[in-house]
Amino acid sequence: MHYKVGDATIKEILEQVKAWENTLKDIKKDRESLQRYTRGLKDKELILIGCGTSYYLALSGASVYMKITKEKARGVPASDILVFPYSVFARDSKYLVIPISRSGTTTETVLAACYIKEKLGIETLALSCYENSELANLCDRKLIASGASEKSIVMTKSFTSMLLIIQLLAAIKAGNKEYEEQLLSLPEKGKRILKEYQSFTKDIAYDESLNKFIYLGQGPFYGLASESMLKIKEMSLSHSEAYHCLEFRHGPKSIVDNKTLVIIFLSDSGKDYETTLLKDIKDLGAKTLVICDRATKEIMDLGDYIVELDSGLPDYARLILYMPITQLLGYYRAIFKGLDPDNPKNLTQVVIL
Amino acid sequence: MHYKVGDATIKEILEQVKAWENTLKDIKKDRESLQRYTRGLKDKELILIGCGTSYYLALSGASVYMKITKEKARGVPASDILVFPYSVFARDSKYLVIPISRSGTTTETVLAACYIKEKLGIETLALSCYENSELANLCDRKLIASGASEKSIVMTKSFTSMLLIIQLLAAIKAGNKEYEEQLLSLPEKGKRILKEYQSFTKDIAYDESLNKFIYLGQGPFYGLASESMLKIKEMSLSHSEAYHCLEFRHGPKSIVDNKTLVIIFLSDSGKDYETTLLKDIKDLGAKTLVICDRATKEIMDLGDYIVELDSGLPDYARLILYMPITQLLGYYRAIFKGLDPDNPKNLTQVVIL
Repeated sequence: MHYKVGDATIKEILEQVKAWENTLKDIKKDRESLQRYTRGLKDKELILIGCGTSYYLALSGASVYMKITKEKARGVPASDILVFPYSVFARDSKYLVIPISRSGTTTETVLAACYIKEKLGIETLALSCYENSELANLCDRKLIASGASEKSIVMTKSFTSMLLIIQLLAAIKAGNKEYEEQLLSLPEKGKRILKEYQSFTKDIAYDESLNKFIYLGQGPFYGLASESMLKIKEMSLSHSEAYHCLEFRHGPKSIVDNKTLVIIFLSDSGKDYETTLLKDIKDLGAKTLVICDRATKEIMDLGDYIVELDSGLPDYARLILYMPITQLLGYYRAIFKGLDPDNPKNLTQVVIL
Repeated sequence: MHYKVGDATIKEILEQVKAWENTLKDIKKDRESLQRYTRGLKDKELILIGCGTSYYLALSGASVYMKITKEKARGVPASDILVFPYSVFARDSKYLVIPISRSGTTTETVLAACYIKEKLGIETLALSCYENSELANLCDRKLIASGASEKSIVMTKSFTSMLLIIQLLAAIKAGNKEYEEQLLSLPEKGKRILKEYQSFTKDIAYDESLNKFIYLGQGPFYGLASESMLKIKEMSLSHSEAYHCLEFRHGPKSIVDNKTLVIIFLSDSGKDYETTLLKDIKDLGAKTLVICDRATKEIMDLGDYIVELDSGLPDYARLILYMPITQLLGYYRAIFKGLDPDNPKNLTQVVIL
């Protein structure tokens, strides 16, 4: 069979909605048992840990979990547990740790999970794409995105599918039926967005005037912005950075020029602040790509490129719908530069130390 | 009087040790009252908030506070409080919030402090360089780095002095005399380091083969790495990024080449992991600047440039000693590029919305 550059990655991006459907089905089957399980979590702070993409997933996952369950949650790089655990775990406090790893074999995450379980005696709940992985086997319980395993080195559908699992866990724990219903509607909306915006996003990626990509997202969108920054860096070796939206004025804006594309993950909660920010960014001469649910007249005037997700869902429910856009941006930027997104420079599928 | 490019900034960097001495004196005077105050904080999670440099201070400050007091602490961008407060504050939990702002007038931080105090009814403790600023006046109590106010737009001595205040607060709360003694020894060590490494750092900054600066720091060093990334970006408009040390392998390393300088904040706790990482980075062809307390033989062989702080202090005590080096790196890189560090592009002293 003839190998086409980037073949595996583009398939995984375009077919990720199928993985979301599988995830929703799997969790539905497990629903009652999960409900019982989450009842036992009262007053435990949730610590989500991971490396790279899984760390960024931990950040957005923690943000969602807090909002929906009203209980404490934090995202932490797995390596911090290995090197500075006392800056993560306080004395006399109760925790549940969710170690996240697509393969379930990432060395730092596996070592951190062992340490947490054996030395600290803290309960662990694995989140992975592989049921029988080292991580899944060593943790007290597991959550598996079985349809989200990937051939590619870069993570795309595994990121969105595992984030969806955290969202479902939060919904079930909180007994929030409305939120759960909203999550059930994501695959259908995702399909439409991919269809509507694939070639649109390709055109942006092929804009040869650009040489810098800045991703801005606030609150639960910060992890998504960071993951999007990583995607375009890994696949296309582009200069990319990520910040909380309003952090952008406090220093980073100094490097913006007319070769910069600023990508804003517009939120409903922050849209007034973010619209003003957009004006500032335009004044600095940058191009802008605004991803939002529905654009106001003002946004229409300010954005060079606008993606309307048109989901009708609130901020915390529609998170993963933003990701296909930025995954495609990274993918097509690589193709534009003559690079193979399936084989990013210096990287491997799993980091084994 | 003749104006010399970068005059204000270099003065503030070189004289920051004086500000540390003032800070130590001020807190000593206030010691008993602070001790009584911290006794009332039992079981309260500390939330440090700020923007830009003050946000990075919040990250390192929270890491230190947890380790020394064994109680919970988090660093959060002030803007997240304004836009997504329920991803920061959990139900039925007790908090103390420390809003941080050099001027005490940063709009987001002031608005967040008002919201926290008035809408959430949470206690606030201002950290600022100005006793009578808006922020200091509206909070329930204040901590002032009176000798650390600056003429410059970029923050240098105010960052280290205010971080020192958080360290002292943690020491007093924990009744940790040994740690407090260690902090008292910082000015003397800082003076020596500045003297020993000023021209050394200038030479690195003048290396014309470099075009990318990656800062790596784990745990409490991550906030410092981020702040160092911001310094060189603001002053010299260089391409700069920051990551937790071991996160570097999970994607970001794809963009490393022989024009990259990787700056590692070497820790005692992480030095085995970090030494192996250093080998990987060398294999990718990058240049390395290692800042450590004392270099092993292996580090000596691996680092292109090595700074030995030679403080004899543990990781959590010696944090601010790393900063003059990276502040100087940013400063001299600007001078090398013909830019004025006192007047960075697009920036102002305070961000007022």
